Parts: sequence; structure tokens; C-alpha cells
Amino acid sequence: MPPILTLTTDFGQNDPFVGIMKGVILNIAPTAQIVDLTHQIEPQNITQAAQIIKSASSWFPKGTVHLAVVDPGVGGPRRPIAVRAGKHYLVGPDNGIFSATIDSKSKTYELTEKKYFLKPLSSTFHGRDLFAPAAAWIAKGIPLTKMGRPVENPVILKLPQPTMKNGKLEGEIIHIDRFGNLTTNISAGLLQETFRNSKPLKIRVGKKQTYGPVTRYNQCETGEIAGIINSWDHLEIFCREGNAARKLKCKAGAKVTVATH
Amino acid sequence: MPPILTLTTDFGQNDPFVGIMKGVILNIAPTAQIVDLTHQIEPQNITQAAQIIKSASSWFPKGTVHLAVVDPGVGGPRRPIAVRAGKHYLVGPDNGIFSATIDSKSKTYELTEKKYFLKPLSSTFHGRDLFAPAAAWIAKGIPLTKMGRPVENPVILKLPQPTMKNGKLEGEIIHIDRFGNLTTNISAGLLQETFRNSKPLKIRVGKKQTYGPVTRYNQCETGEIAGIINSWDHLEIFCREGNAARKLKCKAGAKVTVATH
Amino acid sequence: MPPILTLTTDFGQNDPFVGIMKGVILNIAPTAQIVDLTHQIEPQNITQAAQIIKSASSWFPKGTVHLAVVDPGVGGPRRPIAVRAGKHYLVGPDNGIFSATIDSKSKTYELTEKKYFLKPLSSTFHGRDLFAPAAAWIAKGIPLTKMGRPVENPVILKLPQPTMKNGKLEGEIIHIDRFGNLTTNISAGLLQETFRNSKPLKIRVGKKQTYGPVTRYNQCETGEIAGIINSWDHLEIFCREGNAARKLKCKAGAKVTVATH
Repeated sequence: MPPILTLTTDFGQNDPFVGIMKGVILNIAPTAQIVDLTHQIEPQNITQAAQIIKSASSWFPKGTVHLAVVDPGVGGPRRPIAVRAGKHYLVGPDNGIFSATIDSKSKTYELTEKKYFLKPLSSTFHGRDLFAPAAAWIAKGIPLTKMGRPVENPVILKLPQPTMKNGKLEGEIIHIDRFGNLTTNISAGLLQETFRNSKPLKIRVGKKQTYGPVTRYNQCETGEIAGIINSWDHLEIFCREGNAARKLKCKAGAKVTVATH
Repeated sequence: MPPILTLTTDFGQNDPFVGIMKGVILNIAPTAQIVDLTHQIEPQNITQAAQIIKSASSWFPKGTVHLAVVDPGVGGPRRPIAVRAGKHYLVGPDNGIFSATIDSKSKTYELTEKKYFLKPLSSTFHGRDLFAPAAAWIAKGIPLTKMGRPVENPVILKLPQPTMKNGKLEGEIIHIDRFGNLTTNISAGLLQETFRNSKPLKIRVGKKQTYGPVTRYNQCETGEIAGIINSWDHLEIFCREGNAARKLKCKAGAKVTVATH
Repeated sequence: MPPILTLTTDFGQNDPFVGIMKGVILNIAPTAQIVDLTHQIEPQNITQAAQIIKSASSWFPKGTVHLAVVDPGVGGPRRPIAVRAGKHYLVGPDNGIFSATIDSKSKTYELTEKKYFLKPLSSTFHGRDLFAPAAAWIAKGIPLTKMGRPVENPVILKLPQPTMKNGKLEGEIIHIDRFGNLTTNISAGLLQETFRNSKPLKIRVGKKQTYGPVTRYNQCETGEIAGIINSWDHLEIFCREGNAARKLKCKAGAKVTVATH
């Protein structure tokens, strides 16, 4: 099996930065499978990157290295890290970008072993000089214990969590996809635990009162808005054959409440 | 030779959906060559996807699997299909997305064999749970006959066809590329059959009267508009070193007529 | 090691043209690693492509073939060329697209040997019919001497060069990245040669007077503008945790001057 790496950055697709990182990787691992998750993270939006990596990483084979570079602190004191998290590896800056993928069983290492970096190390593009080569070496099988020293306290951002208020579950929109579907931070598991099998539930987004979860998009009328458990196993607000974000004028961070009838 | 798959979707490049499908494919076919045709199909525009797949698929090696997911009916009764069409395979929803690539000799199968899907099957993302794994298994050599049952009547959309009216050939713009070149649905073969060797022909797009086909872009003056037989072997209206779509304020669907002088 | 090719075009990502070129390459070199540098070159902006290729190409392994198609003269008299430049190969139209990568030791050949092209050769898409197959054959090891005849005078565009005026070094912005960082045509080497170790230097962009080079982004205050030597080893004007291009209303081509205090 070839080494497999994924890339998540805020570099966009107009500049040569992503291509350069792939060149560096291919110098070390010429047969690597390199998959772009996205390079369209909003500049320096670490939370958005954390959620994208969480949503995608588990679908890759055992041993995949997920390389993520959203790095406003490049050149400063933030540590470069590599993490063993379940069956995967994570490589990137220690700024919270892996907040949703690191758990209590993960092992984190600060990347200190300079022989796995390019020389000289620039102060502006560690994606190229440090993270890409380290990730390639890990994908080739170098153990993390040889690449640096254990870190006990990687930076973990407090991602927004749903709360109970007056018998209502209150969460928020964490991702809006190209179709205008609104993914919330309310998981299917939490809905089940909170409301057991009462359904349909009342769902409110901004001023819009709707219901759900339905089990298929086509249980609604064309143009109707409702809730569904989506492919992330989270509650999603959608508009059948339409764009819920546009219709509800909704942005990431918007509040969503769920209650029984 | 490694398995080769192409991907055509309306998922865009900001969301992790395409990366997730690639992860699923690599679990099954870790050495696969995966090529993006485009992920910028307008949301749910099946006709546009059908024409992109037609224009690109034939340039790939024998045995390539073309996976296409523009799937407004996901979770509903539309069938998932795989098709043997000439030297290639097609995998996607049975909603007409292969209308331009399926012909009378193609063999179509409904994908019913659940062991080639992920479990559980979501109702919102068959690209991940059904089409990606099925396509990967086909690329690895599983015969279509093992994956489901023959389908006699796959959905074929009526794509716009040129017609003769009062001695004029009337077609329409079916694709506008990044340069503003306007590809029509009038093939070189049809032009030849209709007008033999009379040339130049009179070409009208909206209110603009022009001529063609020329044989090279540089037969016109800079800024001039004319017709040419393009790389799809279709009549194209172009503006030399300019943008014909912008100059003619032209959209897909605009009428184009061709007549002898 | 698999053949490695990079692609740089002005084709964008909505049209199937890039995918088609990859299909053609995979017919010849099915195990090739194909890396996109960018397809977002402004339509027909040869100078921009020349600078992107320069910035990225050296990071790839020995033997990599850099295929570039920004080709306003397609179908006309411009020559198709292949170049041996250092440890890499370059393939594209002879219109100056390799102006920043060809040097006096490079060997350039006009691609004339038709057996390495597709047949028939269209007059509108040499990326598909000529450059992609030639690049794939070169990546597979066919020597340039078998593909055509030596060319002594490939087209070299005069890229903007910094000059000295009244004791000030005067250059210009040559690239603006997604973060709004402004790369100038003033190299670190030239700064050192001109000003030795005097620092900080006075830097002017439009009406903004600032200083630099600093050695790390975080030597400035948040929102402050300064100069730094960036990952291209050029002087860059940046805004810490902000967008210098937006703040200074700056475009490519804007004048930058550097002087001692």
C-alpha cells in the first residue's frame, strides 16, 4: 500500500503553495497518494479547519497522515506537532487545529528532530520546510518517537457545545455546505439521548420554526425546510431542492434550538 | 496498470465531500489514480454534468471508471447504476447524468449487491456510501454482473438537438468555457452533412452576424468574433484574444443559426 | 520512482480541459504522479505563469516534467518546445512562459516528431493533442533529442527587474497571494548586495512608508505593515494577521522602493 496523506490548508488554489508542498512530499515519498481535503479554509480560521478534518479524516485507510496548515503563528513560538490519534496520524501547528480529532488516548509529539525538516528552515512557510517533510517521513513509517519529544498538553480549542436551557437543546450552525445545507453541532446521539423517541421535534433556526428529523430529503415538499440527520451524523437543516442558508439568511454560528412538541 | 477513476460532482471545493469519497476509494483501491473532471457543476444541473462527462470521458484509458454524483434524488427511489459503455465504466445515479455517454450497445446494471456498499447506508450521501465503493470495486475488476441486475431502460434526458428550419440549421450554446468560448450542439459532422463544402457559412448568435468555420483562431483579427470547429469537434463561437460570452452577453441555451451565404 | 509531472494552465477548474489532459497523460504513463501547480492563471497572462513556475518548480524531484499551457497563439506559428533546465524538464508553447526558468545552460528543442503527438492534431487544444502526450513521453524517459530539433533562441520575456535610482532600489509587486502578502521582484541577494548589513531599511509602497526586513511575522504588532524575506527568498510586504493588499489598495505592478535610513 502506498503512503497516503491528506492536505487541509487556507492557501487557496491560485498560489503555488500547495503544489510546492506536494513537491516536497514527493521528494521523500514518490509513490504517495496525496489527497486534498480542502485549501479553501478561510484565512487563519483554525476552528473551521478543525471541523473539516474531523468530518473527513475517519474515512481514510489506517495509517493515513492528515497534514493541516492553518498557521497564523508561523515563525513564532507555537510548537510543530505530530499526533497518533486512533488509526491515523496528524501533523501541523499546535494551535488547536486538531481539537476535534485529538482525544484522551492520542499521543502527541513536538517535532524537534531537524533531520526530518528542510534546511534552511524559513520563518514564513513551515508548511513547506517542516510539516510537509515531517508528514512524508511519517507516512513512510518513521515512528513519532524518533521525531521529537512527547507533549502532554497540546492546544485544544473549546469548540461550541450544545447546552440544555429550559428543556430546550440549544446548539449552533458549524458548517454551511455548497448546497446551503446547515450542519449543526447537535449529534444524532445527543438528540436520541435527550429526547428518546419523541418525534417529530420542533426545531428553530433564527425566526424559522420547523420540524424533524425526517429520514430522507424527499419526505418534504420541494422548497420546504426541515431537519435531517446528515452524513456527519449531525442534525442538519436543509431546504428540499433549494438553499436553506440563502432562504434563512443564516451564517455559521447561528443558534438552533430543538424541543419536543 | 493502476485502477483509474474520474470524479464529476456538484460538490464544489470548499467542503470535505470530495476528499471523503477519495478516502473511501483508497480503502478499496489504494493504488488508484483518481482524476477530478470537475466539482463545479452547478448544484443539481444534471444536463451540464452529462455534457462534461461526454466531452472528457473518451480521453481516458480503457477500463477507466467515470464516477458522477449530481444527485438531487438521493435517498429517494432513483436507482443507483453502473454502465459498461464502450471501453469505459460509468457509475452514478440513474437520473440521466449519463445521457450523452450511454448508447444502444451499453449495458446498464442497477447496483443492488449490498456487500459492495458501506454499512450503514446513509440517506443523504450515496456518493460516499454507495457510489464511491461500488466504483472502486469495479475499478478493481469486479464484473458488473456480480454487482446487480440488468436495467433495460436507464433514464435518458432529451439533450437539445439541432434542427433544420427554412434551410437554416438551428442549434444552441451548450457550454461556455473560462475564456468565454461558446460551444454549440452543432457537430462538425452535422455541418459537413448539411452544407457540404460551402463556406464560409453565415453564423448568427443573438443579434450578432458572423461567419465560419475558420480553421485557426489567428485567421481572425484580434477582437473579431467567428466560428471554428473546436476540440470537442463542435462548432464554437470565439472572440480572438477576447471573451465572446461577455462581448455577446450570451448564456448557455442561447440560439445559434447557421446558413449558406 | 513513478514519472512526475506538474501542470500550470489558465484553464480554471470548471471546464473539463485539465481532466482531459490528465486522461491523455495516463494513457501513456499510467502510474504518473500528476500535480496541479495552479489552473487559475489569468486567461493568457504568460508573465504570471512564468513567475508561478519559477517559484514552484525547484521543489520537485529530479526529472520532474513541468507542463505549462497558457497559449494564446495556439494553432498559429508559435513553436511547441521542450527544455532541459537543470534537473527538470519544461514543456509548453515557445511564448516566454519559461522566461524565469530557462537559463544559459538550458537546452531547448522544438517538438516536431509527430509520433509523440495525438492524431489528428486539433488547431485549438494543443494542451491535449501535443503538450500532454509529449510531456508524458518525456516523463517516461524519451530523450529530447529524439523529439525534435535544437532551438537556439527560445522566446524570453523581459520580466520586470529592480533598478537603482538616486540611491534607492526600485522594484515592483510581482505576486499577491491569498493572504494579501505582496511579493516583490527584489531578491534577498540583491538587498544584501545593495545595502550590506544596514538595517532596518526604509520601504515605500505607494504612499505607505514602512520598514524591514524583519525576520519573523510576529516581530510586528497585529495589524502593522512591514517587510520580510519570504519563502521565495524575495522581499515581501505583509500585514501581521491582516491583508496588506487590501489595506494598501495594492495591485501587481505597484512600485516598491527601498533605501537606507
